[in-house]
Amino acid sequence: MCEANAYLRKNGREELFLEAVDRVVPHEEGLMLEDIFGRRKLIRAKIAELALVDHRIILEEEE
Amino acid sequence: MCEANAYLRKNGREELFLEAVDRVVPHEEGLMLEDIFGRRKLIRAKIAELALVDHRIILEEEE
Repeated sequence: MCEANAYLRKNGREELFLEAVDRVVPHEEGLMLEDIFGRRKLIRAKIAELALVDHRIILEEEE
Repeated sequence: MCEANAYLRKNGREELFLEAVDRVVPHEEGLMLEDIFGRRKLIRAKIAELALVDHRIILEEEE
């Protein structure tokens, strides 16, 4: 499976936000993340960076 | 390997922009995409959507 973990970058540190993310789609309040089990989480952020072979999605809060 | 193909969404259609993408990182001119072979392409766009299990990254041109 090619899911990735989503981290929120804050003040230069990265906090795990959601594991095993399959889909990230735009939402009126920011982004909707859905993991491979169908669980969803919303976050007011944008996608800053991807490193897919390392299974990493980096999010940043929107200004 | 967990690379994905990057598509540019334009007028509701999706055009393949780069295959086998590993990394997407912010760049002063938009985004820098790097494939699993280290080849790089720049694009003035943002990441709109991800579907990792389907190996898809959707880009949209910046307004």
